[in-house]
Amino acid sequence: MRNIKLTIAYDGTRYNGWQRQNNTDHTIQGKLEQLLQRMTGEEIEIHGSGRTDGGVHAHGQVANFHTNTGMTREEILSYMNEYLPQDIVVLDVKDASSRFHSRLNVKRKTYCYHIWNSPIPDVFTRKYSCQVPEPLDIRAMEQGASYLLGTHDFQSFCARKKMKKSTVRMIESIQIEKQGAEILLTYKGNGFLYNMVRILTGTLIEIGKGERKPEEIPMILEAKNREAAGPTAPASGLFLEQVDY
Amino acid sequence: MRNIKLTIAYDGTRYNGWQRQNNTDHTIQGKLEQLLQRMTGEEIEIHGSGRTDGGVHAHGQVANFHTNTGMTREEILSYMNEYLPQDIVVLDVKDASSRFHSRLNVKRKTYCYHIWNSPIPDVFTRKYSCQVPEPLDIRAMEQGASYLLGTHDFQSFCARKKMKKSTVRMIESIQIEKQGAEILLTYKGNGFLYNMVRILTGTLIEIGKGERKPEEIPMILEAKNREAAGPTAPASGLFLEQVDY
Repeated sequence: MRNIKLTIAYDGTRYNGWQRQNNTDHTIQGKLEQLLQRMTGEEIEIHGSGRTDGGVHAHGQVANFHTNTGMTREEILSYMNEYLPQDIVVLDVKDASSRFHSRLNVKRKTYCYHIWNSPIPDVFTRKYSCQVPEPLDIRAMEQGASYLLGTHDFQSFCARKKMKKSTVRMIESIQIEKQGAEILLTYKGNGFLYNMVRILTGTLIEIGKGERKPEEIPMILEAKNREAAGPTAPASGLFLEQVDY
Repeated sequence: MRNIKLTIAYDGTRYNGWQRQNNTDHTIQGKLEQLLQRMTGEEIEIHGSGRTDGGVHAHGQVANFHTNTGMTREEILSYMNEYLPQDIVVLDVKDASSRFHSRLNVKRKTYCYHIWNSPIPDVFTRKYSCQVPEPLDIRAMEQGASYLLGTHDFQSFCARKKMKKSTVRMIESIQIEKQGAEILLTYKGNGFLYNMVRILTGTLIEIGKGERKPEEIPMILEAKNREAAGPTAPASGLFLEQVDY
């Protein structure tokens, strides 16, 4: 049996996130599985590298599925892009080894959060960014971010109150770039908890506004309590950029 | 009486273009006039630098209107951006001289056409570009564009069959830039006829595909016949960038 690895981009605006919940919901996984079943005539289950929340976008989500189809990679790509809705696109199709699993084999994930930092909204990126009208102190945000690097228990930055599994994760880098009115926060790490990137961003935005000091980050980590951290930044600004294996 | 000059950006996707046609239509001018009447309590007529077609976007449309309001420029800006729909935004408000007219005083207009040049669509710019799957020969397009520079009768590039007024215009520059899969065509000139930028672009795309030779441009200009030129490129890729006075 073949194990097909897909790289997928989507505009998450219209969807209730990645994960299928039932057969009538509006999810990315659901749309892909429906189409693959039609394409192959088989019962297909697709595994994503992880869930993305409702409204979150992807430039490079990865997913895999098993099939006996005889279609070439090019045929799969063009069939899928012909029939997928306009806001989901398959960027790449590869044959992976039989042991490859999109979620279990993740080495590194890259997320990017887009802030539109201006009192005047931007009509073209309004669905793909979060507007912050107040000026942001990038240096303070970078200083705050530096305390987050490395291996920590990120329970304070997790939306789920009771996690049975470990909430320890390793953040490799957080890069903050300003390009005109746009500020991009790029997070690389071995994995991220539920809502973690959005809560990290909400907390760094508070630091940028001067509502919180960079030096508070270690205390927030130690608290292991969601209420110690800042608000969850809106889904619209978040992109799953890349998944490395 | 004050003469207020507005600089406006809009996502044209949802609108039937700039120009108000009746009181119930869905146009940029209509939305702005409705709001300004509510804001000032006066009967307001707004003059744009020119019409944009349905689906065409603007990064810097300019419009002016006369009013007796005592509001400051900052108050007008924030009132308008609070109540305008999310896909229209006022970037700047200035007091202009009483003689200033957005359309009659135009010195130069800049339009930008966005091509997504890849067999794989882009979900994030699908409403703000036109996809061309075939490879495009940029050098040939530049050569074709060079024949369009200067003062010519552009009747072949005008969608209206019978123009009572002159169809002579001056194109100052056409810049073609490739940034990854995106190709940007930037047109600067003293004025453009109805659909002219879209027909120029449709013709340059044919040249880029090799369906037409760059050397055909002089013959197309001489023909003074719409049928001699290429197709009208889709509205979604076109942006009114800037208007200079």
